[in-house]
Amino acid sequence: MANDQKLNLTMLCDFYELTMGNGYFEKGYGDRICYFDVFFRQCPDGGGFAIAAGLEQIVDYIQNLHFTPEDIEYLRGRKLFSEDFLAYLADFHFTGDIWAVPEGTPIFPKEPILTVRAPAIEAQLIETFLLLSVNHQSLIATKANRVVRAAQGRTVLEFGSRRAQGADAAILGARAAYIGGCNGTACTISDQLYGVYAGGTMAHAWVQMFDSEYEAFKAYCQLYPHNATLLVDTYNTLRSGVPNAIRAFNEVLKPLGIEDCGIRLDSGDMTYLTCQARKMLDEAGWTKCKISVSNSLDEYIIQDILRQGAKIDMFGVGERLITARSEPVFGGVYKLAAVEKPDGSIVPKIKISENVGKITNPHFKKLYRFFGKDTGKAIADYLCVYDERVDDSGELEIFDPEATWKRKTVYNFEAKELQVPIFQGGKLVYRCPSLEEIRAYCLSQVDKLWDEVKRFDNPQTYYVDLSQKLWDIRDQLLKSNGKG
Amino acid sequence: MANDQKLNLTMLCDFYELTMGNGYFEKGYGDRICYFDVFFRQCPDGGGFAIAAGLEQIVDYIQNLHFTPEDIEYLRGRKLFSEDFLAYLADFHFTGDIWAVPEGTPIFPKEPILTVRAPAIEAQLIETFLLLSVNHQSLIATKANRVVRAAQGRTVLEFGSRRAQGADAAILGARAAYIGGCNGTACTISDQLYGVYAGGTMAHAWVQMFDSEYEAFKAYCQLYPHNATLLVDTYNTLRSGVPNAIRAFNEVLKPLGIEDCGIRLDSGDMTYLTCQARKMLDEAGWTKCKISVSNSLDEYIIQDILRQGAKIDMFGVGERLITARSEPVFGGVYKLAAVEKPDGSIVPKIKISENVGKITNPHFKKLYRFFGKDTGKAIADYLCVYDERVDDSGELEIFDPEATWKRKTVYNFEAKELQVPIFQGGKLVYRCPSLEEIRAYCLSQVDKLWDEVKRFDNPQTYYVDLSQKLWDIRDQLLKSNGKG
Repeated sequence: MANDQKLNLTMLCDFYELTMGNGYFEKGYGDRICYFDVFFRQCPDGGGFAIAAGLEQIVDYIQNLHFTPEDIEYLRGRKLFSEDFLAYLADFHFTGDIWAVPEGTPIFPKEPILTVRAPAIEAQLIETFLLLSVNHQSLIATKANRVVRAAQGRTVLEFGSRRAQGADAAILGARAAYIGGCNGTACTISDQLYGVYAGGTMAHAWVQMFDSEYEAFKAYCQLYPHNATLLVDTYNTLRSGVPNAIRAFNEVLKPLGIEDCGIRLDSGDMTYLTCQARKMLDEAGWTKCKISVSNSLDEYIIQDILRQGAKIDMFGVGERLITARSEPVFGGVYKLAAVEKPDGSIVPKIKISENVGKITNPHFKKLYRFFGKDTGKAIADYLCVYDERVDDSGELEIFDPEATWKRKTVYNFEAKELQVPIFQGGKLVYRCPSLEEIRAYCLSQVDKLWDEVKRFDNPQTYYVDLSQKLWDIRDQLLKSNGKG
Repeated sequence: MANDQKLNLTMLCDFYELTMGNGYFEKGYGDRICYFDVFFRQCPDGGGFAIAAGLEQIVDYIQNLHFTPEDIEYLRGRKLFSEDFLAYLADFHFTGDIWAVPEGTPIFPKEPILTVRAPAIEAQLIETFLLLSVNHQSLIATKANRVVRAAQGRTVLEFGSRRAQGADAAILGARAAYIGGCNGTACTISDQLYGVYAGGTMAHAWVQMFDSEYEAFKAYCQLYPHNATLLVDTYNTLRSGVPNAIRAFNEVLKPLGIEDCGIRLDSGDMTYLTCQARKMLDEAGWTKCKISVSNSLDEYIIQDILRQGAKIDMFGVGERLITARSEPVFGGVYKLAAVEKPDGSIVPKIKISENVGKITNPHFKKLYRFFGKDTGKAIADYLCVYDERVDDSGELEIFDPEATWKRKTVYNFEAKELQVPIFQGGKLVYRCPSLEEIRAYCLSQVDKLWDEVKRFDNPQTYYVDLSQKLWDIRDQLLKSNGKG
C-alpha cells in the first residue's frame, strides 16, 4: 500500500529551483558537478544535540524523481522555460551521489548531515524536498527524544495526529517520534505503513454515549478485558471516574482473574489527582492498574510533575510533540560547498553573510566522530577535507574554529566516519534499516553522549572542529571574498 | 493529477476510534445518531479571531472514505475486532450530514465551525482527519492573515516549503496562506494543484556558481529580463550586491527599455539596508526597482521594520508562517453535543472538566452572525438551539454566557446563518468555491470586523453569546452532571 499510493513529489520544489535550473541549462552550467551540504545552525529548544531523521523518505523521493507530461505542460504554460530545458526535464532523473548520516544519529550544528554531489540542475532541483524531509523528521525525533528522556523510562505514546500540520506531519511525525524513543502512537496508519505500534484508550464521547459513566466503563471492560484503560475525567476524576473504574474492574476483570488494567486522566492537577487515584486503586487492590496521563504535556511538564511525586506509568504526548510546539522549526539549510572544474579538481565555495552565523563551511568534506576508547563516549566531531584521513592510532590536536586558541589533544580514541554512501551515480547503494533498528541505534548513540551534553538547559557545547587544512581554506576564502 | 494521486486517508484515524467503533457496534450503539461539533478554545497568538480553512480537503476525504482489503487485514491482525465489525468496515462509507462555515470565514472560540450528524461509528471514525485538516489549515490561514495585515498592502509571498512539517504542510500550507491573504508561494506543486501562484527569485547558489556576482546577475537578467529579481546579499549587500545589480540592470535591461526589476535581501539589518539600497537604486534611475526581503519574518518584525521606515515592496515569509512558529497549534476539538433517541428526539450532551475552559456547549445548535445594517460590521455571534429562529426585524437582548449580567440589546441588524450544509445523507450538497473566491471572501469578511477585534495585542473580545434557551439547557446539564 505504502508504495502504490505515494504522491509524486518531484514538483514539490521551490519555483526558483526551476528557473535557476533553466538558467544553468541555458548558460551551459547544467552539467557542472556541484557539492551541496545539508546542515543546521542551532539545536531546537536550546538543547545540546539533535537526532537525524527523514532519510528513508529522501531515498523514496530520489528513486521516484520524474516529471510527468502534465508537469511539463504546467511548466510550459508558465512561459519562462526553453523547450530544450523542458525536453531535458521530461527525461530527468537523478544521476549523482548522496552521502548521509544514518537516521537516529545524534547530530550537531554546522556539520553536514547529508551531502549531494550532482550536476548543478539535479542538485538544485532536489533542495526543497531534501530539506523538508530532514527538517521535519529531525525536528520531531529530537523533540521526542527530549520527552522520552524526561519520562525516565516510563512509556511515552505519541498522541498528536489531530493537531499535526497536515497528514504527513501526523503519519511521518509518528515515525520520527518512534525513532526518537517513543513507544508507540495513536495514529493507525503509521502502524500499518511503518510499523509504529498504534494503541489508545477511549474518548470522552464513549463515556457520554452511555447512560452513566459506570455503564460505559463496564461495557469497555467487557469488550476489551485485556486492554481496559478507562478515561476517568469526563465528569469528576476522584468523586466519579476512579470509583466507577474500580467498580467496573471489580465486576468484570476480577472474576476473570485479570490484574492488568489502566486509567487515563486528561485534565486537572496531574500531581494531586494521580497521587489520590493511586491511593484509591491500591486500597481497592488494583496495584497493577497503570495510570496514564495526557493534556498538553511536554518534557518540562513531565519533568516537573515527576519531581513533584506524581504517580504516572504512561504519558500520552500530543500537540506539543507532533508540532514541536516550543520550537517548531528545524532550520536545516542546503548550501553550495564546492564545484568541480572540467579537469575534476574541486573548487571550494563559501557563502558570506552580514549575519556571521550564516557563513558556511566550504569544500567537499568528511565528517568524523571521535569516541573515547576507555569510556565509549563521544568526545568531538571533526570535519576535514575529503582527501584527508584521520589517524586515530596516536594523538591529535583539535581546536575550536571560532576561538582557535582553545585547543585540546585527543588520544586513545576511535574515529568513526559518520556519513555513509546512499546513492552512487544515481543508484541506491544503501539498505534502509528497519524502524526498530533505527530506534535502537538512536537510543544506543544517545547513550554515548555525556550527560552534560544531554542537559535540557544550558548543555555543554559539543565540539565540532575543523581540520587545520579545512580551517585554512575557509579563512582564505573569507579573506578574499570579504572584499566583494 | 490531484485526484488520481490522493492517498487514501481512511486509516489516518486514532486507533481508539476503531476500538470505540467496534465497541459501539458490539453494544448495539453503532446506529445511534450523534451530533459532534468541531470548535476551538483560543485564538492563536492572542489574536481576536481566526480564519476557517481546510473544508475542501474534508470534502475529498469524506467522499473517498473506505477501507481496503489490506486495511481490513491489518485490523484483523490486531486481534481486537469482531469479524462482524470488520465486515461492516469493508462496506463502510459516510451516510451522515455535515454542516460547516465556508472556508475563509473569520471564526471565534467556542462556536461550532463544523457539525457532524451521523451514526456513532461513522461520526467517531472521522474525528482525527476532520480535526487535522481544520486545525492545520485554519492555523496557517490565521497566521497568514496577520502577516498580510502587518504588511499593509505590500505583496506577501509564502516561502516556507523547506521548513514545513512534511509535504502536506508545504502544499496545503501554501493553499491556506493564500486564503489568509498571501499573494503567492514559492511551492511549485501548490500552483499546479491548487492554483496558488508560484514565483521566486534566485538562491545564493546561483550567485556562487558564476565566477563573479556581476556575471551571475547579468546572466539572470539576460535569461529573465521581465522577471529579474537579483539576490544581493551573497557577499556584501551595499558594497557589492546593489552596485552589481545596478550595473547588470544598466547593461541588460536599459537597452531593452525595461524598467521593472527587483532586488532581494536575505540577511542583515533590513531597515538600514533597504533605505540605503533604495537611495542607490533611485540615484541610478531605477526608481521602479522593487525591493524584496526575507529572513525569519513574521507579523511583528514586519510591523516593526515598516514603522522604522524600511523601504520594502515585497515580503517573502518562510518558516514563521508555514509552521505558525509563535503558536504552532490550532487547538480545534471534536466533542459530542447530542444524541438522538430512537423516537427522533435529541438529547443534549455535555462534557464537564476540572478545567472550566474545557466545558462544552451542548446540543444541536445553529450559529448566527449579526451584522449592523448601518455599518455592515459584525456585532456578535449567536448560538441557539437548532429549532430556534432569530428574528432580526426587531430588537434582541444578548448576554455574556460567562457573566450573564453583561447584557446588550442589538437592533437594526441582520442575522446571517454561518454554517451551510456540506453533506446530507452522505451526499455532497455543496459546491466548493474556487480558491480565488475563498480568498476574496476571507478578505471581505475580515473587513467586516471592527479594528478593535483585529488588533494583534489585547484585541477586543468579540461576543459569542448563547440564546436563553441554550444557556438554560447548559446550566441544567452542568448542575445535574456536576454531581457525578
